[in-house]
Formats: sequence, C-alpha cells, structure tokens
Amino acid sequence: MNSKPRNLTMMTDLYQLTMMNGYFLDGSYDNEAVFDLFFRANGQLNYAVAAGLEQAVEYIKDLRFTEEDVEYLAGLRIFAPAFIEYLRNFTFTGDIYSVEEGEIVFPGEPIMVVKAPLIEAQLIETTLLNIVSHQTLIATKAARIVSAAGDKKVVEFGLRRAQGPDAGIYGARASIIGGCAGTSNVLAGQMFRIDVKGTHSHSWVMSYPDELEAFEAFARIYPDNCLLLVDTFDTLKSGVPNAIKVFEKLRAAGHKPVGIRLDSGDLAYLSKKARAMLDAAGFEDAIIFASNDIDENLISQLRLQDAKIDVYGVGTKLITSHDMPSLGGVYKLAEITRDGVRYPRMKMSDSTEKITNPGFKTMYRIYEKESGKAFADLITLREETLEKPITLTHAIDRWKKTTLADYVARPLHKQIFAGGKCVYTCPPLSESVRFSAEELEKFWDEYKRLSNPHIYKVDLSDKLYDLKMRLLSDRR
Amino acid sequence: MNSKPRNLTMMTDLYQLTMMNGYFLDGSYDNEAVFDLFFRANGQLNYAVAAGLEQAVEYIKDLRFTEEDVEYLAGLRIFAPAFIEYLRNFTFTGDIYSVEEGEIVFPGEPIMVVKAPLIEAQLIETTLLNIVSHQTLIATKAARIVSAAGDKKVVEFGLRRAQGPDAGIYGARASIIGGCAGTSNVLAGQMFRIDVKGTHSHSWVMSYPDELEAFEAFARIYPDNCLLLVDTFDTLKSGVPNAIKVFEKLRAAGHKPVGIRLDSGDLAYLSKKARAMLDAAGFEDAIIFASNDIDENLISQLRLQDAKIDVYGVGTKLITSHDMPSLGGVYKLAEITRDGVRYPRMKMSDSTEKITNPGFKTMYRIYEKESGKAFADLITLREETLEKPITLTHAIDRWKKTTLADYVARPLHKQIFAGGKCVYTCPPLSESVRFSAEELEKFWDEYKRLSNPHIYKVDLSDKLYDLKMRLLSDRR
Repeated sequence: MNSKPRNLTMMTDLYQLTMMNGYFLDGSYDNEAVFDLFFRANGQLNYAVAAGLEQAVEYIKDLRFTEEDVEYLAGLRIFAPAFIEYLRNFTFTGDIYSVEEGEIVFPGEPIMVVKAPLIEAQLIETTLLNIVSHQTLIATKAARIVSAAGDKKVVEFGLRRAQGPDAGIYGARASIIGGCAGTSNVLAGQMFRIDVKGTHSHSWVMSYPDELEAFEAFARIYPDNCLLLVDTFDTLKSGVPNAIKVFEKLRAAGHKPVGIRLDSGDLAYLSKKARAMLDAAGFEDAIIFASNDIDENLISQLRLQDAKIDVYGVGTKLITSHDMPSLGGVYKLAEITRDGVRYPRMKMSDSTEKITNPGFKTMYRIYEKESGKAFADLITLREETLEKPITLTHAIDRWKKTTLADYVARPLHKQIFAGGKCVYTCPPLSESVRFSAEELEKFWDEYKRLSNPHIYKVDLSDKLYDLKMRLLSDRR
Repeated sequence: MNSKPRNLTMMTDLYQLTMMNGYFLDGSYDNEAVFDLFFRANGQLNYAVAAGLEQAVEYIKDLRFTEEDVEYLAGLRIFAPAFIEYLRNFTFTGDIYSVEEGEIVFPGEPIMVVKAPLIEAQLIETTLLNIVSHQTLIATKAARIVSAAGDKKVVEFGLRRAQGPDAGIYGARASIIGGCAGTSNVLAGQMFRIDVKGTHSHSWVMSYPDELEAFEAFARIYPDNCLLLVDTFDTLKSGVPNAIKVFEKLRAAGHKPVGIRLDSGDLAYLSKKARAMLDAAGFEDAIIFASNDIDENLISQLRLQDAKIDVYGVGTKLITSHDMPSLGGVYKLAEITRDGVRYPRMKMSDSTEKITNPGFKTMYRIYEKESGKAFADLITLREETLEKPITLTHAIDRWKKTTLADYVARPLHKQIFAGGKCVYTCPPLSESVRFSAEELEKFWDEYKRLSNPHIYKVDLSDKLYDLKMRLLSDRR
C-alpha cells in the first residue's frame, strides 16, 4: 500500500506560478486575499454533498517545494531568481474555512474560504478545486443513487471504469460519504477502512468446464459467503437452476446461501422470475444483487416496476458521474487588501446569476424551530450577527422575503487552518457518513427529487447585497 | 515531486482476490489463461488512440504485496492461510502483448493480450482496465479535438476539473499523445517533460485597482511573454483597448507582445472584433487564444464561422471526456488450459456484436500497397500466417469479402512481458506523439469524421471465425 499521501505541491496550473512570480516582483505578494471556492448551478443538480476536505487538508499540510521541483522550475527560464529562492522556503501561512465532509451544500455557496497572502492563495487554487470538486461530485452522485434505492443497499463497483487510480480510490471514499454501503476497491478499503465487497466474475465460470461445476467449486470454498453470478450463459435456463442446485446442497450441509447476482438482460423481468424460482425452492432469504449500467434513474424505474432487487452494484455511472462528469467548481477573488485597506472584489458578468458575491463571508443554515427542517441558507459578511426575528431575502429577487420569528441557525463553516496551522481534526469517515445522512433528512423531499427539484433558498443578507449593488454601480 | 510511481498492487476489486483464493484452493491457479483487453463500440466513436502502456508497465513491474497489505487481507477473514502465504511471494510470471502508445485502435480489437497463470491474470484485470481505458479515452478525445482544430494549436487546461489528481496528471500526458501542444499542468510537465503553458487569470486583474494597471504590471514582468486575458470586465470596451495600450508601450520598448486570451462571451464574434482591433493597431502577429467550454464540436462550428482563433485552450470537456466519460473497456477470458489441453473460451450474448472472440489472438493492419492507406485490420489466431493475395472477410457478415493482391501488413502487437520479465522499452513520449500523428494520417478522412464516420473494417480470419462458430454450435 501507499499509505502516505503524495506531495501535490507541483500539481498546479503554470499560470498560478507566473502570477506568483509577478506578485512577488511587484511587491503585492503578501497583500491579504480572500478567495471563495464554490460551484455554479449545474443541470438537474440541486443539492450537493461536500467531500474531499481530508485530502485537501493533507495537501495543504504537505505544501513544500523540493530541491528537484525548484530546479525544474528554474529550468523553465521564466521566473526571477529571487522568486525561485522564495519557493525554496514556501509554506502556507493563511486561514482556511470550510464546510465539513458530508455537509449538504448548494450552488453559489462558498464551500471553502481561503484567506491568505495573495501569492499563497493563488498557488493552491488548482489542487483545492481538483480535490474538492471531484470528491463532492462523486459523493453527490452517490447520494442521488442511494436516495433512489430507498431501503435497498448500494455498493460502489466502478474502479475499472474510473478516470485513473485516484478517481477510483477517492471516488470510492466519496461514494461512502454519499451513502454507499461498501466498495469493491480493496485499496480504498485498506486506506479508509471501509467495507469491501465482491465474490466472482464471469471468468470464474468460464474457466471451468461448465457452469454447475464452477458454482460447486465456489460453494465448496465459500460455503457461508456464496453469492453466484448467474448470467454467463443463460440466466433463467441455466444460471438460476444451477445456483438452486448448489444452494440445496449447501442447505443440506447446514449452510445458508447468500444469493445470486444478475449482470445483464432486463433486470426487472429477470429479478422477478429469479425471485419466484428461488422462493419456490425455499430460498426466500437469498438476496438478488443487480449490476449493469445502473444509475439513479434506472433504479427509480426498476422500483416502479417492482423489480425484486435487494442490492444494487453501481459502477461506471457513479464513479464517473456519467451524466455530469464535472461539478464546474470555481475559486474567485472576493477581497484584496492593498496598503492596509480591504477592497471587496467580484467577477462581473452580463448574466446576473454569474456575478460573484464580494467580501469575506460566512454562511448559516436556518432551520424552522418547530419542524426542525432546513428553511434556507443565508450568506452574510463575516462580521454580521443574526437577529431574531430574522428576515430572509432572495439573492436576486429582493421582493421575495420571509420573516421567521423563531429559528435555529447553524454556522456552516469550520475554521480548518489558522495562520498556516491546521486547527481542525478530520472526523472518522463513519462520522461524516452519519452526519451527512442525518443532515439530508432535514431537507424536505421536494428538494431532493431527482428531476426538477424544488429549488432550496440560498439568500444574501442585506449588508452583503448592498455591498454587491454598490460595487456594481461603481463599475457602471 | 513524487517521481516514483505508486505501488498499485492492492488497487483491485475484491472479487479478484476471492477468485484467486478459490483458484488457489481448487488447484487451478496455475492453469494458463489468455485474456483480451478491448473496448466495445461506443457512441459516435470510431477510432481510439491507445495510451497508458507506460503506466501499465510500471504497475506490472511493481507488483508485490507488502507485509501491511498481507495483514490487512488476512484481517478480512475470507482467505485461506495458505493463500495469504502465497501472496507474500506473489510476482507476475506471465506474458503480455500490447499495441504501443499512440496506436490507432478500433472497437473489439485486443489492445492488450495477457497470457499468464489464471491467478495472476485475474489480479491485474482491474488496474490494467483502469489505466489503459482512462488514458486511451483522453488521448482519443484529444485527437478528436486536435483534428477539429486543423492547423491551430490545442493546449490542455483541465487540471482543476479533472476527476482527482491522477486524472489531471495522466490525462495531461494522454492529451499530448492525442496531439495537444502543451498543458497547464506543472506536475505533468515535470514528470513527463512536456511543454507547460499559462500566463494569468481573472484574479490577477481583480487584485489590481484597475485592468490597465494589472496589464501594465504583467507587461513589466513578462515583456517578452505578454499574453493578456481581456474579458474580466468588458472584452471589447475595456480589455482589448487596454491590451493594445500596453502592447504599444511594449513595442516602443522593442518587445513583441504575444497576444490576448478570450475566456467568455461569443468567441466567434469577439475574436473577429478583437482581431480587427489588433490589426488596426498594427499587431497582426499578436495571437488570439480562446478558452471556455471548448470541445471538438464547438471548434468545428467556430471555424465554419471564420472565428479568428489561433490557439484553443481546452479544459473540462477534454480532461473528463465530457460527452463520454468512460470507454467501457472490458477484459475477457479467451482461452484456458486445463490438464495440459487448451480450451478456447468466449462470453456468450444474445446480441451477435457482444459475443467475444475466442482463442489466443493477434492482429494486423493491412495497408493498400499503392496509396499506403490503411485498408482493414485483421484479427487472427496467433499461429496463423498471412497469405498473398489475401482475402479479408467481415467479422459478422461473411459474404462481405475483398481480395487484395498486393498489400503491406503490420503486426499491431508488441511483446511487453515474457515470463514476467519486461522485454519492451517504452519510447520517449515525443516518439509516441509522432507515431500516432503519422499513423492517423494513414486513415482516409472519412473514418475520422466527428459525426457518423465511415466504419473502418476490423475483420476476422477464417480460422478464427470457424472456431467461434464451432463454439457457438457446441453451446447450442
């Protein structure tokens, strides 16, 4: 195993280094900057499940340029010698605020806020986006699939179809945060102590003279863990009858067979037929495990057709987030200090939705006191305090207001780094899993519908809105 | 930098290990098996550009279980103690044949053939598929984008949107094999000695009091590498005029400005307007670099509209292969030896196209002697020799035949491992790039059209076809 995380200091875009060299020579490198990391509204997606903080923390803790790195950079002949010297002693000295892993987040919300000397904040943009966007993407896809499966389990099976090793390894971890019950990925199991699952493939069956012999061999070796893949030749004519023969022998010898796996054909039809055959043979407890091109939409349709599937093995469509393979995360400058004066900043755009929110911000989730359900998220400037009653106002359509007399507010950001020092302990993965599932329960189902969900409110405080409007009119 | 490849021995699906334990206990573990790695026909894709062999070779060379790995596996309590002992001394002893990196390959063709004791061939399935499928996917996407760009350059910019670090790093390498001119990814540049590119982002501009000041600062530091991002506020009213002011100063001081970058808005309209403004100011040589959601389809459309774009920066859509984020690679048993007898094997299916090809195979590319153009690929059993004249017959519709009196045949497989020893030297990346571009030239344009390409012929020899039919009728 490779238990030590790799040093990813050099994994950045070249322009981060050309800008850093520029800031360094320009004397503006230690101007304090605030950057927000967030994702924009994206297709059918409403909520997302934040993930990747643990790897982001390891990355920041590990930031340093080796002698080999510095020599490579010097060899590019675009950087000043003084800057190259600066890199030799580079460390991160800033503050980072973030939502915790498993947190439910929405488009436009700052998942992370980095407050650091401009030169440092710039370096880490690319890798933070890479890590947090990828893991959040997969945790979110997993949560959608798990939610579609209702009380049935979902197991992550996608390693072979993942976009490289890390996508398989950290994708498996993110799937667990999103609610999967296990993974086929042994390395992920070892690294993160998560449950690993798997029995046999078609090649097991094909390597024996016939299917029955292959099943018998498997049952001999795994009498108490006998889950048989039944579609190598013909599911209903050969696979299920052979599995039942083997299960009968196991039963006679005092073992309890686990069940069968379907990996092709029409899963609704085959699962109902196979269920009836297993039941008729007295194997009502044998489970039916289904795989093959499964995603949340297919699971919804299969359940509507009363498919008899107990566990879903989900591969390609989960591990690549097939219908939306990127979250489109961005990292935008929100404030810059020059000569001791803080200047809020925002990215302009012709479309109102794409204009970013300026200033050093934080955010709260506002729950209705009575139901305990999430009512809205509120983004504020960091120095603001919340009042009771509170008036929540739509981020763009300011005439849309609601006043809550009584509510519970939960700050969504934790401080992760303070002055370059990590001040946060990542909880065990199981804790993030529990937190995420419990938090998701606090949202009405309407927000979680797979198609055309009701849009959850992410409001801006009056102070933040006023600042934004002032900057807009200054610019015009 | 992390120059040493990670050990990925444990990166496999659990079922590979449960099967290995089974083969071990069953005494069938050293039965020699032949597996083919290939991908199935997949959407609009006709050809693919093979990539990933170098990483696959490193993976195989490095195969070994550490004490920590073995202890973890023993702790799962599903494996026999004798098997755990076997893993302690595990090495790969088999043969591997593969196409080289950059090779043009087609659906159904064995990109790799593994001939090894069953227990070893089984372990490596998952990681070979992960590495080869991912890198082939991205090299292919890059080749499509580069082909759409014609004589204009394409630079890979996707690291922040990649599915984790490896997807960014090895995706950058694959993009180069597919024909990209460089990458923004500094670590990939360092690891693979590829050209790195990049100047500045919006945050550079936003960190200064105004755009002109930001541009002037950049020009001061990079007078001979001055490419300015002009869309932070308003491309035509502010960005381009400010860039021209700065370019004029550079010119007066004897420097040659590089150009501008557009990252939003309508790239056809803006590039034509910006081109006219630059030309009018005497900067005919200044290039226009465009980014923002670019893929092969957008490039085709922009070129049809005569957009004035010299270099395309391609991010998300390339690094995730956005419209097809998985190649769907598979690894299927083709032959198994039991008691000294070789049994060809194939995976059955109700659809003829999905039935795999049995036996220990190789393949050739047949070129027309006169034009030098690729005519068809031919998959044969390994022991066959090619005759002159040669008759090429469609893999399924056997009445479709062509006889070539004169031709050149090139074997597509190289032997990579022999008896567990690596017998192949990976060429320098630049060599694979050149090979791929030259080989792609040997295919008629009709095969390379982005939409509805003409389907290139991948034929089966009579001997292979007869074997397949015999197995099919035995099965029935």
